[in-house]
Amino acid sequence: MVTKQDIKLIKSLNQKKYRQKLELFTVEGVKGIKEFLNSHYKLNRLYTTKQIFEAPSTKTLEISENELKKISSLKNPNTALAIFEIPKSKNTNSHGLIVALDDVRDPGNLGTIIRLCDWYGIKDLVCNHSTVDCYNAKVVQATMGSLTRVNITYINLVEFMLNYSGDVFGTYMNGENIYSADLPNEGIIVLGNEANGISAEISSIIDRRITIPQFGKSKDTESLNVANATAIVLSEFRRRTIET
Amino acid sequence: MVTKQDIKLIKSLNQKKYRQKLELFTVEGVKGIKEFLNSHYKLNRLYTTKQIFEAPSTKTLEISENELKKISSLKNPNTALAIFEIPKSKNTNSHGLIVALDDVRDPGNLGTIIRLCDWYGIKDLVCNHSTVDCYNAKVVQATMGSLTRVNITYINLVEFMLNYSGDVFGTYMNGENIYSADLPNEGIIVLGNEANGISAEISSIIDRRITIPQFGKSKDTESLNVANATAIVLSEFRRRTIET
Repeated sequence: MVTKQDIKLIKSLNQKKYRQKLELFTVEGVKGIKEFLNSHYKLNRLYTTKQIFEAPSTKTLEISENELKKISSLKNPNTALAIFEIPKSKNTNSHGLIVALDDVRDPGNLGTIIRLCDWYGIKDLVCNHSTVDCYNAKVVQATMGSLTRVNITYINLVEFMLNYSGDVFGTYMNGENIYSADLPNEGIIVLGNEANGISAEISSIIDRRITIPQFGKSKDTESLNVANATAIVLSEFRRRTIET
Repeated sequence: MVTKQDIKLIKSLNQKKYRQKLELFTVEGVKGIKEFLNSHYKLNRLYTTKQIFEAPSTKTLEISENELKKISSLKNPNTALAIFEIPKSKNTNSHGLIVALDDVRDPGNLGTIIRLCDWYGIKDLVCNHSTVDCYNAKVVQATMGSLTRVNITYINLVEFMLNYSGDVFGTYMNGENIYSADLPNEGIIVLGNEANGISAEISSIIDRRITIPQFGKSKDTESLNVANATAIVLSEFRRRTIET
């Protein structure tokens, strides 16, 4: 049976401060839970309406649909909810491409960017502390399991960049044309906030400003959404590695 | 004053069948409304809490915040709501790149794809009838004004493709590597449904299957979301036009 204490714990994990304090987060749905169970993530507790998971029975509680509704934060709860431990971040590898996020606020955007990192084989994603928490339930949902394959670290981005020996790239409206720019297979690629782009402080330590040129002719066109910009930038960096 | 009839009309426009019958749709928010006012779209009626728009006074009704709340479908209504006429689609230009959508269902995805078409100078977007309606309020919101600059037509996609003389491209998991494929500056690019990709019927008349290769090594990685795939595919097609 789901106790009041269970409900209280699970609801508290909707808040970043409790996730950080307890070092726990929730995952909902069969596919997502299976991906986390098959990864290095450690299960804390599994609440499920069906015994379809390969999880230790000591950590599994069979519950009713009604109980699932009480603990789920989804409109249409899907079979199960699991609590996993937030792992310690591994050290960021200083080789290869690193994606850095400066104040990305939208959970859907972060989730999509994590998925893109997974697709394009980016092992390290570093975020400054104002970027949305990657263990936010909406982010976890949007990553479709990619969270288990990308090493995400929340850091002081300025310090990290200052200690980095390679080139730091940033996306701007008025930089080098990304299609003709010389792009290495190592470096940091910084993407900025949805409304304001990359902050002035971070901008001051960017080595190379790159731009996705606009082909349509209207001056009213909004700049690309940060997730789409990430898709195009990663595509361009990776393309070069197979052509050379 | 907003009448009951106004409210009834505006609410009915949340449904596709009434939008099609009345040939009207709604736009909310200052920026969006201004973009439509500055375009070829014809205003039917403007409900606003502030006189900040350049619109004929005969078609403008000043309303209170409370009245705006009654007609808005947003949680946080923003200043105004406008009703515009749905224009007749222009003939699709047979030159240049055309994007075709086969059963894209998510309003956010369609909105993002329209924005990408605008950015990459794609003038024509053709959709089969099962693709979400581009005058759906969520789509209009997500396009950030790009809807005024892309010609969108709902058609029988199979017939359209059969009558087209150039190459028809489709995105698949097992086609030619897009980065090394020869890509022309004319053609139709087909993108498919979020869960099922391109349908069997449409697939049978695709000339060239292209693939965005995966660089990460996990077999569990989900395929790219259709909006991100569109971003990368349009980026690749357009890049070639500046290199040659």
